[in-house]
Amino acid sequence: MKDARQYFKLQSPFAMKRGGALHGAHVAYETWGTLNAARDNAVLIFTGLSPSAHAASNPTDPSPGWWEGMLGPGKAIDTTRWFVICMNSLGSDKGSTCPASIDPATGEPYRLTFPDLSLEDVANAAHAMVASLGIDTLACLIGCSMGGMSALAYMLLHPGSVHAHISVDTAPQAQPFAIAIRSLQREAIRLDPNWNDGQYDHAHYPDTGMSIARKLGVITYRSAMEWNGRFARIRLDPEQREEQPFGFEFQVESYLEGHAQRFVRTFDPNSYLYLSRASDWFDIAEYGQGSVLEGLKRIHIERALVIGVSTDILFPLEQQEQIAEGLEAAGANVEFVALDSPQGHDAFLVDIENYSRAIGGFLSKL
Amino acid sequence: MKDARQYFKLQSPFAMKRGGALHGAHVAYETWGTLNAARDNAVLIFTGLSPSAHAASNPTDPSPGWWEGMLGPGKAIDTTRWFVICMNSLGSDKGSTCPASIDPATGEPYRLTFPDLSLEDVANAAHAMVASLGIDTLACLIGCSMGGMSALAYMLLHPGSVHAHISVDTAPQAQPFAIAIRSLQREAIRLDPNWNDGQYDHAHYPDTGMSIARKLGVITYRSAMEWNGRFARIRLDPEQREEQPFGFEFQVESYLEGHAQRFVRTFDPNSYLYLSRASDWFDIAEYGQGSVLEGLKRIHIERALVIGVSTDILFPLEQQEQIAEGLEAAGANVEFVALDSPQGHDAFLVDIENYSRAIGGFLSKL
Repeated sequence: MKDARQYFKLQSPFAMKRGGALHGAHVAYETWGTLNAARDNAVLIFTGLSPSAHAASNPTDPSPGWWEGMLGPGKAIDTTRWFVICMNSLGSDKGSTCPASIDPATGEPYRLTFPDLSLEDVANAAHAMVASLGIDTLACLIGCSMGGMSALAYMLLHPGSVHAHISVDTAPQAQPFAIAIRSLQREAIRLDPNWNDGQYDHAHYPDTGMSIARKLGVITYRSAMEWNGRFARIRLDPEQREEQPFGFEFQVESYLEGHAQRFVRTFDPNSYLYLSRASDWFDIAEYGQGSVLEGLKRIHIERALVIGVSTDILFPLEQQEQIAEGLEAAGANVEFVALDSPQGHDAFLVDIENYSRAIGGFLSKL
Repeated sequence: MKDARQYFKLQSPFAMKRGGALHGAHVAYETWGTLNAARDNAVLIFTGLSPSAHAASNPTDPSPGWWEGMLGPGKAIDTTRWFVICMNSLGSDKGSTCPASIDPATGEPYRLTFPDLSLEDVANAAHAMVASLGIDTLACLIGCSMGGMSALAYMLLHPGSVHAHISVDTAPQAQPFAIAIRSLQREAIRLDPNWNDGQYDHAHYPDTGMSIARKLGVITYRSAMEWNGRFARIRLDPEQREEQPFGFEFQVESYLEGHAQRFVRTFDPNSYLYLSRASDWFDIAEYGQGSVLEGLKRIHIERALVIGVSTDILFPLEQQEQIAEGLEAAGANVEFVALDSPQGHDAFLVDIENYSRAIGGFLSKL
């Protein structure tokens, strides 16, 4: 499979919000469609915590992307009209400089010497990348989950850089329930002896901690309602069960195990820790003298679509309402869509029909 | 501090639902008030997964119990009127025979040779203990959380043994979200190398697994709404923070840590695993040809009060509605109380005012 990623070298040093700087750093991104002559048809997508820049297939890399149903010719984000960019977050190991990257100062991986990472840093790296493509103003900035917080940072730190915004299943600040979940995920990794203060290798890898972290993630990304319909109390066939004390017995346990196994070795644990903590740190109220509303009112764009789902326990619907109210108070024309998809926080990845209708409808009016 | 526990020796062998038997086993219980001459004023309380039989202070043990605000002279469960019994579940290490107890056949602790434990076994042990006190019919059977499932088993397996029932924050069967949470708690313990297939000791103890399990428990016992008001994004003072990478920074993290530290060494990990799995296994539909409603319709009592709370994510309100509907369909006079307490599943331990009003009101009408 060919790699469709392109790389943008950040200015060096690249100063980080909380101090420190990266030298010779870069971010990976992919694109779909063609930038028009006026350079006014660009759409940037910020991903959630773990996805890569490969949001959808393209001629170079025809493998399906993480938002394949949403993005492509004739789809909701129509690549015959829009020039779409998806960036792998700074600090993520899917091509961008991250804690697993080599620190040019030492020739060794950064690991825990990577500077503190904030979503503001992710936003600033994206803004520089977009500028390097000759784009002054994004036609639309889309952010999903953690990426929705990066998007808020982008718009706040770079006034005039965005015309319209689509906010998907996200929040203007991390609330304590989400902090508690992410803290426990980080702790599961930190307490794994193989994490070894970040000094793991392939032979000694924190599989256990990463597995627990991922399962806890999946539990909070989906919803009890969906699982009642999907798994109920269905048992595994005897031959599928683990031959060990307290081994898995129900289908829902095997489902979580499958998710964990696919994740554990495909995401760098230190990068996970850095991005997870960056999510906890994000708080738009920092820009509004402690008020979420005042922070949001510093964002000036023309139009916005804010989507949330009633079954989301990690980014509850009230937080999307806050975003919608804040952007409206700042003068934007805001559409707010509350969905009842049963899939919880992950609905934006699964309920393509309803998300497509909302996102496609909004983009078609731009 | 004196010990108010009394012990009831179970018949030997005591046959277990899923096979195997206990020899020379016992259950611990405490009592408050006086059994009247007609022996018709007895109230039995089944606890949640981890509490002891010490539901409230009494002359022998004046330390506060886990339901201190609910139980006592003049309180909702008025011990001047009722003879109240609270039993430590069979399989729990707070005085009853459990995996940490000595197996008389070997002189060694059972550990994982303890037979499979079901809530039906807990119910049967309680029924024998109640009978030993000369009580044919309980005036009221109260079950909280896991204890609510034990109570359903008690009433179903021992027809005519209960006059009235109070069901508190519980469920007629474990649903997949709750199974997923408990499975992950068990896995955190199982994956701790110090668990060692149940062969731990005080010097090599699965502190890490137990801590993660407890924190995950506390996260699901409370509610996001409560924490927004209680913790918001308040940081720890610098001197309270951990001096280690990714150490705790927010108050909510320190709150969870405090809960974990108080729990880890005070509950036997193997007992925790057995009771947790028993909760997953419980399913009233087993007694109704796969139907929860039909299972509940096999319970014949006069009156019931069913209480749930809208913020409970572990035992959602719909499950209490099912219990209320089923008991009513079976012919009981049922009161259903849906509270909006912000404390989630744990509201029955915290929102004493509202739970007292409902429980006290119901009992006063008996």
